[in-house]
Amino acid sequence: MNGEFGLIDAIVAGLGDRSAGDWITVGPGDDAALIQSTPGMHQVASIDSLLADVHFPLSAPPQLIGYRALMVAFSDLAAMAATPRYCLVSLSMDEVQLALGSHWVTALAQGMAEAASVLGVYVCGGNLSRGPLNIGVSVHGEVDWQQVLLRSGGAADQGLYVTGALGGAAACVRTGNMVPVDPSALSPLQQAYYRPLARCDLASDLGSVAAGLDISDGLTQDLGHLCRASGCGAALDSGAIPLAAGAALDDALFGGDDYQLLLASELPVPNAHRIGTLTHGADITLDGKPLAAEGFDHFRREG
Amino acid sequence: MNGEFGLIDAIVAGLGDRSAGDWITVGPGDDAALIQSTPGMHQVASIDSLLADVHFPLSAPPQLIGYRALMVAFSDLAAMAATPRYCLVSLSMDEVQLALGSHWVTALAQGMAEAASVLGVYVCGGNLSRGPLNIGVSVHGEVDWQQVLLRSGGAADQGLYVTGALGGAAACVRTGNMVPVDPSALSPLQQAYYRPLARCDLASDLGSVAAGLDISDGLTQDLGHLCRASGCGAALDSGAIPLAAGAALDDALFGGDDYQLLLASELPVPNAHRIGTLTHGADITLDGKPLAAEGFDHFRREG
Repeated sequence: MNGEFGLIDAIVAGLGDRSAGDWITVGPGDDAALIQSTPGMHQVASIDSLLADVHFPLSAPPQLIGYRALMVAFSDLAAMAATPRYCLVSLSMDEVQLALGSHWVTALAQGMAEAASVLGVYVCGGNLSRGPLNIGVSVHGEVDWQQVLLRSGGAADQGLYVTGALGGAAACVRTGNMVPVDPSALSPLQQAYYRPLARCDLASDLGSVAAGLDISDGLTQDLGHLCRASGCGAALDSGAIPLAAGAALDDALFGGDDYQLLLASELPVPNAHRIGTLTHGADITLDGKPLAAEGFDHFRREG
Repeated sequence: MNGEFGLIDAIVAGLGDRSAGDWITVGPGDDAALIQSTPGMHQVASIDSLLADVHFPLSAPPQLIGYRALMVAFSDLAAMAATPRYCLVSLSMDEVQLALGSHWVTALAQGMAEAASVLGVYVCGGNLSRGPLNIGVSVHGEVDWQQVLLRSGGAADQGLYVTGALGGAAACVRTGNMVPVDPSALSPLQQAYYRPLARCDLASDLGSVAAGLDISDGLTQDLGHLCRASGCGAALDSGAIPLAAGAALDDALFGGDDYQLLLASELPVPNAHRIGTLTHGADITLDGKPLAAEGFDHFRREG
């Protein structure tokens, strides 16, 4: 072990060309990063944290942990129709990771760099501390105020859309096959869990969309957030919900970790599937029957 | 316990008017926060995390934990001569805090709101998860590129300055009297530890300063960072180092948690004390004798 500064060097090496460039004027190495903003745009910011054995298996390959951590965090910017720009990473590591030496953090950083390349963003700063494995990711982007996608713009009679197949990651968790032997040869369900795509690629398709958010806690619970913020109910058609191969309907409804977008729009949305309609009132129904919100709550008491 | 969303409500209640306002167009409640930026200014960003029994005693009053967490994180923006604007907080909590119910998180948020008021910033977003107590704080501000204070601008013969008395927080740790009975009646050393001031108030005094950073890991180690980044050495005068009441010279040299600024400047710096001079070469000396860098390293192996 090389101490804190050796670990930072190993992380910056793993990040490669993703630690600074373009709009990042000062990257890692000073007290803070410096970023140029685009005139007229709003800044968009969100923070997330991923914990071992809560948000990923402790024994998962570090490349996959890093990739997933960044994508999950940036999904909140996709949910605002924002263009992602940069992130900061706060990493707490304990003896388990330290025993694996700088290889572990370099591989983690390589996974982050891979996701950063896909999104066109930079990891321009961070922080290291010693403690139970915890990856905090603060994500930042820009959006035109006229284009921002809030949860509160929904209204009765708008169509409900999702941007891709649901339930794959939840099916991966349900089937328990979560630690791949070879990080470069994932099963389709492992791919859904470890390599989600934050749908920042769709921002230009969302011009006429009235409301939206990303599906992180399961379709039912996230639809509940949209309905409460918009003051309406919803009617879902189970046959219209696109399911990932290997996923059951309950994986899509009550699972999580999909990171597709749930959108409300009067007009059809390009690259999205219509799954239902917003309604008057507050009830959420599936094929006409009431649907209870059973999504993921980190703090719910069992039993 | 009210589950995740009840806890979020308790936190937002504790934040009061510090969760949104002024440049915060959308605060807590959507997928991300929206922030207006000032034309022509650079964005400045840093992330920090505070862990129980590493960065504060687990049994400390939550108001003080929250206050300290924000100030410590914003100190990195003061170190860039930036104007602080907003932060995001990622909070992991385990059964210990959950057993204390929403009172604990409300008090934590009230402490954060108090620090946010002092600095004139907002806590406009965050994230909750269940795990060992870990407070991640991502801090954001703005700076004119002409005014930014980097570590690398130092040169031989510039004076070295600090912005206040050092060693108080380290003396608090050393004397072991770290858990106050009454959070509103702290001893001077507890005050130094729990209620540091991120020196964002001094940005307008730093116009002629060539290099600087905040003193978080002890004067010697942080001076080492400045000297390495600037390619020079330093000569300190022990008698000139301002010590907090109750602090020894070693607390200032090798302790930490001061959050004053260490500055290099050709001209005198208002509201700062001259403690030495930058020199040619790479050696750091105290009263002419070599000084070993023994500051805090989270990952150094003992023995």
